[in-house]
Amino acid sequence: MTTANRQVRLAQRPVGRPDDNTWNITSEPIPEPADGQFTVRIDYASLDPAMRGWLNDVRSYVPPVGIGEVMRAHAVGRVSSSKNADHPVGQLVSGSFGITEYAVSDGRDVVVVDETLAPAPTWLGALGFPGMTAYFGLLDVGRMKAGDTVLVSGAAGAVGSLVGQIAKLNGCRVVGIAGGPDKCGWLTGELGFDAAIDYKSESVGRALRKLAPDGIDIYFDNVGGEILNSALACLREGARVVLCGAISGYNATDPQPGPSRYLSLLVNRASMSGFIVTDYLDRFPEGMAAMSEWIRRGLVVTREQVAPGGIDAFASTLGMLFDGANTGKLVLNMHEQ
Amino acid sequence: MTTANRQVRLAQRPVGRPDDNTWNITSEPIPEPADGQFTVRIDYASLDPAMRGWLNDVRSYVPPVGIGEVMRAHAVGRVSSSKNADHPVGQLVSGSFGITEYAVSDGRDVVVVDETLAPAPTWLGALGFPGMTAYFGLLDVGRMKAGDTVLVSGAAGAVGSLVGQIAKLNGCRVVGIAGGPDKCGWLTGELGFDAAIDYKSESVGRALRKLAPDGIDIYFDNVGGEILNSALACLREGARVVLCGAISGYNATDPQPGPSRYLSLLVNRASMSGFIVTDYLDRFPEGMAAMSEWIRRGLVVTREQVAPGGIDAFASTLGMLFDGANTGKLVLNMHEQ
Repeated sequence: MTTANRQVRLAQRPVGRPDDNTWNITSEPIPEPADGQFTVRIDYASLDPAMRGWLNDVRSYVPPVGIGEVMRAHAVGRVSSSKNADHPVGQLVSGSFGITEYAVSDGRDVVVVDETLAPAPTWLGALGFPGMTAYFGLLDVGRMKAGDTVLVSGAAGAVGSLVGQIAKLNGCRVVGIAGGPDKCGWLTGELGFDAAIDYKSESVGRALRKLAPDGIDIYFDNVGGEILNSALACLREGARVVLCGAISGYNATDPQPGPSRYLSLLVNRASMSGFIVTDYLDRFPEGMAAMSEWIRRGLVVTREQVAPGGIDAFASTLGMLFDGANTGKLVLNMHEQ
Repeated sequence: MTTANRQVRLAQRPVGRPDDNTWNITSEPIPEPADGQFTVRIDYASLDPAMRGWLNDVRSYVPPVGIGEVMRAHAVGRVSSSKNADHPVGQLVSGSFGITEYAVSDGRDVVVVDETLAPAPTWLGALGFPGMTAYFGLLDVGRMKAGDTVLVSGAAGAVGSLVGQIAKLNGCRVVGIAGGPDKCGWLTGELGFDAAIDYKSESVGRALRKLAPDGIDIYFDNVGGEILNSALACLREGARVVLCGAISGYNATDPQPGPSRYLSLLVNRASMSGFIVTDYLDRFPEGMAAMSEWIRRGLVVTREQVAPGGIDAFASTLGMLFDGANTGKLVLNMHEQ
């Protein structure tokens, strides 16, 4: 067993899309746990669009990752050394361990992973923050009710694919927006969406007027940009727009235009609301119980795209998110080097 | 007494700012009431920014005014002839009578005006739709609570001046945005606002950072445009943006940019909501009771700017709204010709 622990650190803040100059790979000895601590050997790291926001030096819902710091990330790994009785060697855990091969933790905000319910990568997807984001964003922020017409963008992604499925199993009509025929076929096939719009090959606005002629009750937005505008143009009275992300503009170097159709909120008595999933930490048990039950009964399909390559592949794998190259939850296998 | 009844009709839909070609003035005999109806001689007509929206041939919360139709307007007048026992001759009433010297009504949606509480023009302002817009927009849509920092634009207008006063008397800190030193002086003087920003002479963003360094809890937006963007940049966690209007863009012929800072809603877990005051018709008794009591006790200052000139002055007086030339509720005196 190696004694080296490698990690990805922020070398400099990216302007536009992160590239090789954004990151440093460093190496240090595997950390030894102090009393009350344990060391985790990381198996899988979660790659998320939100990571791009954490690189900007602006006031936001969390402080930015500092220059020279290990890149922030959720991850799953196995306890390899322990001085904490609650987390013995061999236990599988998830937590905000960062992009590192080994991490030390005192157990705070660490979740013990039950592999009998779902394999480890799923605990970074449907049973992790993306799952809770979909659950609380749709049900609480979006105030979903049976019979609603729900539109979701980034629909083949980690959050979007769950939003659509939760809406379906609660009696909604669901339209997903995704890029390319493969993703759209997955949505209307295995996931059971009522319809999918391929934004790369058709006009979202035109498709929406055809697929939701009476308008939409909930738009769950993961992408922003012109797709948000098209959705705003099709709101039904009392509609809720849930702002989860805006990946279309995350790497932009020019100022991005705002949604020019925002006055649709006024004439339709609609609302547009943002949220941060960590505000729901107290209610995670509720969300985890529901999601676990849906998974156990086969009502929710979970899918992770596990990319190989470990630490060295972090930068290129992160780029897949901005290329729309992943389907389902993008996870980095941290073992392969 | 004349037997002619003159009215303003929509001649053609304006592109940009309404002008002389937008309107026709027509004349016809004073209408005689049928059984159950009564005729009203109009004293005062309400001129409102929303009127501009009613001229566009688009799907909205009300149908557009049709070409050749009498311009839609709220008005106050006295019953001059009646075959309706509930509305005898001499009674003062308000309703959606239009820009016309005489109107016939069957009493539906007509309010009997109590002049002992406030003079007739006030029933088109604080005791009319603007008052109810301020009341329900702030308290219900904005979910105002004591201690909130409330920002309102168009603050010297019919709705804005009431929003700020209602917030003040409920224990909020209030900052108003208006154009020019006279309006700003009125806000911080007679109306008791904590601060006013003159958008014509200072940077709203810079002023906001100084006047509300901890951010704002409610932004009540009457204007849209760059001021909305500046407000979005200063939201506090959980803030509510209430969309009431967007007069800065109503006459624009180019597409207006949207609020590029809208992702502030996301990171601040904030919301932006539109509403239409007529959705609250069922609760008007509550709002009217509160507003009446505040007026009676001198807690709310009401102000109307009554413009002279009658029918012939409608077009030029309406333009005052887009020039920011009015302070308080703009009302047209329909008697002077």
